[in-house]
Amino acid sequence: MSVSAVAVDASVCAQPLPVLGADVTVPLVTGGEVTYAALDYAASAPALQRVWDDVAAYAPYYGSVHRGAGYLSQLSTDLFENSRATVAEFLGCREDDQVIFTRSTTDSLNLLAAALPADCQVFVFETEHHASLLPWRDARVTYLNAPRTPDEAVQTLERALADRDPYGPALVCVTGASNVTGELWPVRELAAAAHAHGARIVLDAAQLAPHHPVSIDELDVDWVAFSGHKLYAPFGSGVLAGRSDWLRGAEPYLAGGGASRKVARRADGGVDVEWHDTAARHEAGSPNVIGVYSIAAACKALTEAGFDELVARERYLIAKVREGLAEVPAVRVLSLFGDDAPRVGVISFVVDGWNSSHFAAALSAEYGIGVRDGLFCAHPLVRTLLGSEPDEPGECGAPEAAPGEKSLNAIRVSFGAGTPDEHVERFVRAVKELVADGARWSYRTEDGRCVPDTSVAA
Amino acid sequence: MSVSAVAVDASVCAQPLPVLGADVTVPLVTGGEVTYAALDYAASAPALQRVWDDVAAYAPYYGSVHRGAGYLSQLSTDLFENSRATVAEFLGCREDDQVIFTRSTTDSLNLLAAALPADCQVFVFETEHHASLLPWRDARVTYLNAPRTPDEAVQTLERALADRDPYGPALVCVTGASNVTGELWPVRELAAAAHAHGARIVLDAAQLAPHHPVSIDELDVDWVAFSGHKLYAPFGSGVLAGRSDWLRGAEPYLAGGGASRKVARRADGGVDVEWHDTAARHEAGSPNVIGVYSIAAACKALTEAGFDELVARERYLIAKVREGLAEVPAVRVLSLFGDDAPRVGVISFVVDGWNSSHFAAALSAEYGIGVRDGLFCAHPLVRTLLGSEPDEPGECGAPEAAPGEKSLNAIRVSFGAGTPDEHVERFVRAVKELVADGARWSYRTEDGRCVPDTSVAA
Repeated sequence: MSVSAVAVDASVCAQPLPVLGADVTVPLVTGGEVTYAALDYAASAPALQRVWDDVAAYAPYYGSVHRGAGYLSQLSTDLFENSRATVAEFLGCREDDQVIFTRSTTDSLNLLAAALPADCQVFVFETEHHASLLPWRDARVTYLNAPRTPDEAVQTLERALADRDPYGPALVCVTGASNVTGELWPVRELAAAAHAHGARIVLDAAQLAPHHPVSIDELDVDWVAFSGHKLYAPFGSGVLAGRSDWLRGAEPYLAGGGASRKVARRADGGVDVEWHDTAARHEAGSPNVIGVYSIAAACKALTEAGFDELVARERYLIAKVREGLAEVPAVRVLSLFGDDAPRVGVISFVVDGWNSSHFAAALSAEYGIGVRDGLFCAHPLVRTLLGSEPDEPGECGAPEAAPGEKSLNAIRVSFGAGTPDEHVERFVRAVKELVADGARWSYRTEDGRCVPDTSVAA
Repeated sequence: MSVSAVAVDASVCAQPLPVLGADVTVPLVTGGEVTYAALDYAASAPALQRVWDDVAAYAPYYGSVHRGAGYLSQLSTDLFENSRATVAEFLGCREDDQVIFTRSTTDSLNLLAAALPADCQVFVFETEHHASLLPWRDARVTYLNAPRTPDEAVQTLERALADRDPYGPALVCVTGASNVTGELWPVRELAAAAHAHGARIVLDAAQLAPHHPVSIDELDVDWVAFSGHKLYAPFGSGVLAGRSDWLRGAEPYLAGGGASRKVARRADGGVDVEWHDTAARHEAGSPNVIGVYSIAAACKALTEAGFDELVARERYLIAKVREGLAEVPAVRVLSLFGDDAPRVGVISFVVDGWNSSHFAAALSAEYGIGVRDGLFCAHPLVRTLLGSEPDEPGECGAPEAAPGEKSLNAIRVSFGAGTPDEHVERFVRAVKELVADGARWSYRTEDGRCVPDTSVAA
């Protein structure tokens, strides 16, 4: 594996942003404790200290929102609606865009799926996370094969859109940064292609927004979805932002209070409902004020830290990991777009002769490093990258996958604004030691997890 | 209004449970500051201090759940699943019941609505909160008129179920405690009636669970729904617990990762999905671990505090408020079931000659008391109780509703485990002073809120 040289000025990216849990220590199976290296940011990132501080400062002032007449209710209502404005600014929303608070990216895309106009066709690459791949249950979906270059992605999409029959309403759903390879997708070009063919496009920014500035207006996408818990705000909220017309025209996502403006019995015994046509239409039930506020706090904290510096620091960490892994011939990094593709701090790989669950378990138990193993909720993509058939990965214990045998799952390391150098350095050292020397402990599968076998020392 | 004497042993209910915000002071329009009296628990309750402490202790250990291999991921996964077990125990779940984490009661009931079997008929009283009244969009719904006694409720339901045509699958949805009157509904009797007629029943326990023990098994209901934010755990999670068969048989509530066990391309280009049939089936996307944990923490805290003591203390507070209001002839308390009905700490009323928004605004601005005004997301019920037509409430400023004129909305005071005596005492005094002397300040409507007119002193 070759890694192109990455010029990084370390002086501009000296320090990670403070996050919760930076001092947490965990036990090693081999004895002693070590600070935990959280390298599973792509699944869920720790809270920024600043986000936690803002939440903790607000929590005593928490109050019911909307029709509450009390001081804290009005304060909380203002804070909730100001958070909406903060997110709109963070995403560079256009004037008539709506920002709807959901619980996650998955929820945001399911909401949009429920708001598709009649006969809308959906176009989605097989490379998407299941959150982007699966929500379109009531639509006719065209799954596009994995492209091997960004240009091929655009051409594939253009061809599919041009050939659609009937040539009616269409939606493209695409990720900004792959949750498996970390590679950036050509969002602006895909948006242009979609619009040239009379389609709309939603950007799954779950993996992009924590690492790069995302502007709806500049990318010219119709909607953006992302999750708080990957954006250093793990308090149960997400966002769908963008064009209001489809959303206003759709049935309310949830039926209940908050979404309903007026409810009255009819003379025939039925019930008439007038629904809101603002964001409230799709936000029935008491909102998750703390979750929403935490997202706004994260947007502010990242903006103030400056994405230029965050991106520079992350490039430096990416280079460290990729250069380190390149020195281990047994490691194969998974990639669609090749070594030179721009990417975020998400890197998946397999290790020749190792079951991935076993490798991930050893990183945890022997080095205090938290990564992820599996298919990363992107089964078709990972199988395409591994060249493997849909099958169950083996047990994590012996016998391990023989050298040369195809892996059935992979290992993913991911990091971001809170990651210190030491975590990625420890990770690279651990990979090298494990490959060179093997695990120092025995492991077995228990409840589907690979865990150290505490009854037997290696 | 007469209030029956309530025998309360004050010695067993000396202290409220510590909650966040107990020391928060708010400014008065008349000058100075006062500690905030949060009397809008029925909308959203403050976090128990114990819940906050548990969340704060866990937050540094937050990690991605499920396939994360790291120590904190495994700790967080265990904590998430243990929270499910805690909630199951709190609700007295039967062995094959499922506990599904949602975002709120509204979400829970929308989930159940999406899981109804084909041709299921739904029976719901017009007295329900919109969260219980409106989710049944794809079903044939029979709205039952407001009963005036618990017995009448049971008889009305029995008649409607017996008369249903066709006599097929049916679901009854009923609240445990009204979010308007606070009155308890005869849940056990309604459940028996439902089952006798081959129907199932879901209990909306949003207002009941924070105040009374709720046992699925003892009440013999099929499902229970409630929200964390009314149960002193305002972190964006809710619960649907109960029978697994309809839930297992339904399409996943959200489509995405976590709910899908295996996803694979088909030879024809499509995608095959195998869904989980555990709770995960309806929990796609990264779960709100902190929200879920906070609910479990609240369940434990309430159980340890003891519902006997909590109920006794609440009865004492209810008596204080009702006896106080009974001394003000201009006050009319809204009730379906009459003065002797058992109830939780939720009391709605109108004041002769006052616009309710104006009254609520004066309680806030002049006394630092947070109540709620409006129709409380239960429009048909409140209009039935007020005897008013569906219409917009007037502006909060002059001219006020003339004495004898029908109110178009109401005022609700509500409280619970964290409410000190002083809050309800201040509330009763404030009502008496406002009715006797009028507001000391001028008010006007701004952005739909009634606010002090700071340009003019009264």
